[in-house]
Amino acid sequence: MRRIALRIAYEGTNFHGWQRQEPPGLPALRTVQGEVTRALVEVMRAPIHCQGASRTDSGVHAQAQVAAFTADCRVPLQRIPAALNARLPEDIRIMSAWHVPDDFDPVRNALAKCYRYEIACRHPFMARLPFDRKFVYALMYALDVDRMRAAAMALIGEHDFKGFAHSQHGRECTVRTIYSCEVNTMPDDRVVIDVSGSGFLYNMVRIIAGTLVEVGRGRIDPAQMPAIVASSDRSRAGPTFPANGLQLRWIYYPPDRSEPVCVT
Amino acid sequence: MRRIALRIAYEGTNFHGWQRQEPPGLPALRTVQGEVTRALVEVMRAPIHCQGASRTDSGVHAQAQVAAFTADCRVPLQRIPAALNARLPEDIRIMSAWHVPDDFDPVRNALAKCYRYEIACRHPFMARLPFDRKFVYALMYALDVDRMRAAAMALIGEHDFKGFAHSQHGRECTVRTIYSCEVNTMPDDRVVIDVSGSGFLYNMVRIIAGTLVEVGRGRIDPAQMPAIVASSDRSRAGPTFPANGLQLRWIYYPPDRSEPVCVT
Repeated sequence: MRRIALRIAYEGTNFHGWQRQEPPGLPALRTVQGEVTRALVEVMRAPIHCQGASRTDSGVHAQAQVAAFTADCRVPLQRIPAALNARLPEDIRIMSAWHVPDDFDPVRNALAKCYRYEIACRHPFMARLPFDRKFVYALMYALDVDRMRAAAMALIGEHDFKGFAHSQHGRECTVRTIYSCEVNTMPDDRVVIDVSGSGFLYNMVRIIAGTLVEVGRGRIDPAQMPAIVASSDRSRAGPTFPANGLQLRWIYYPPDRSEPVCVT
Repeated sequence: MRRIALRIAYEGTNFHGWQRQEPPGLPALRTVQGEVTRALVEVMRAPIHCQGASRTDSGVHAQAQVAAFTADCRVPLQRIPAALNARLPEDIRIMSAWHVPDDFDPVRNALAKCYRYEIACRHPFMARLPFDRKFVYALMYALDVDRMRAAAMALIGEHDFKGFAHSQHGRECTVRTIYSCEVNTMPDDRVVIDVSGSGFLYNMVRIIAGTLVEVGRGRIDPAQMPAIVASSDRSRAGPTFPANGLQLRWIYYPPDRSEPVCVT
């Protein structure tokens, strides 16, 4: 038996999120974990528990989710991605597989995660091309990126982010550390928010995006941000932005658990 | 009554092509022309005939299709895109509208059109990210781009392209002029083929892409290309590549008929 980690990319549009959902007496919902587990069972010919690092919500995308399973695997490691991809729908792709220590826990061992939220600032009467609509949230107003950057500074560091979480976040501790929060403009009309941190609460990145946009359009003063964070008051932060603009970009692990740079 | 031109972008995945298809006794198929006409009738409150410049096939995308209609339009010109977009599905966007002379014919007045075919060269055991799968055709082998460029030279100029058309092309004259055929590699693993010309026969760009890929993988010698073109023999050209890799990029018109650079 070996423990194996997978790097997984998916377009979240047509999934009910990462986590398997099989309501009693009802058909199972289409989830990424459900699809990956089904493909693993077919390839490994054994019951498999596949644990993911991040429980991405319905509609959220992933460039690099990490999941792990333990199996008596007769398929050579480098053939696992192709064997799984042949059995997976085209909106999920296994990008790589590598060996990890037997005690590897994709959630607890993660040192940092990075999410990206993409926004298109649409001016009235200007249409956007339809090609990236499933990955970018479109606004009808312009944003002041400098104001957003100033406000983002107040998020960095260790804070109680209770005010930036869904009320049903389900966690005892709501203290998290944000390592960086960058706001950048792209050559087209997009504004990209990259947030990395030790971990994130339920809806936290979508609320960060919603709050920074309130700052960028002039409804919240950047100087208020430290007080908004300190208040732990959800009603003082901005709206929860839609899932489609959000993607999980990467997850860092210690050297003995991370993906080898050269795949063998 | 004024004649108005529209620049239209669409993701072709879920359309049965541009052209309206209403088989007798059956429900109308979902087409771009059908959707745009329905929205125009709602906005103009009159019967509308909307003529497109290119009859893109089922699954083919457009960055900039051009269509025209004549109406007694009470909506200010600059509000027409937003008025139509509010009534269109999100996979079609009207990018702009401008006045054209009463005799504007989007097909006959076109001076040049450009199509792009995008290919991802996937090496065995390497997966591709799932995000652009609807716009890029994936191959399982590597391509020699220099060979493809040499072969592309043989397409440029005026030729009878009967050998590069679907047998049911439905045209009396199969002579077309290709102005340019560029093969480029992108920073990721993609190979992009841009073809511009006076006009294209049914499936012509998809057969050009299929033929250049046969050259790029070593099955056709680039030196054979002039003879393949001259033969007018469909069986000597390569396969018809799938629709999803193809997009209509732009259409050129004479100055008095083209979209103004500054929209007023």
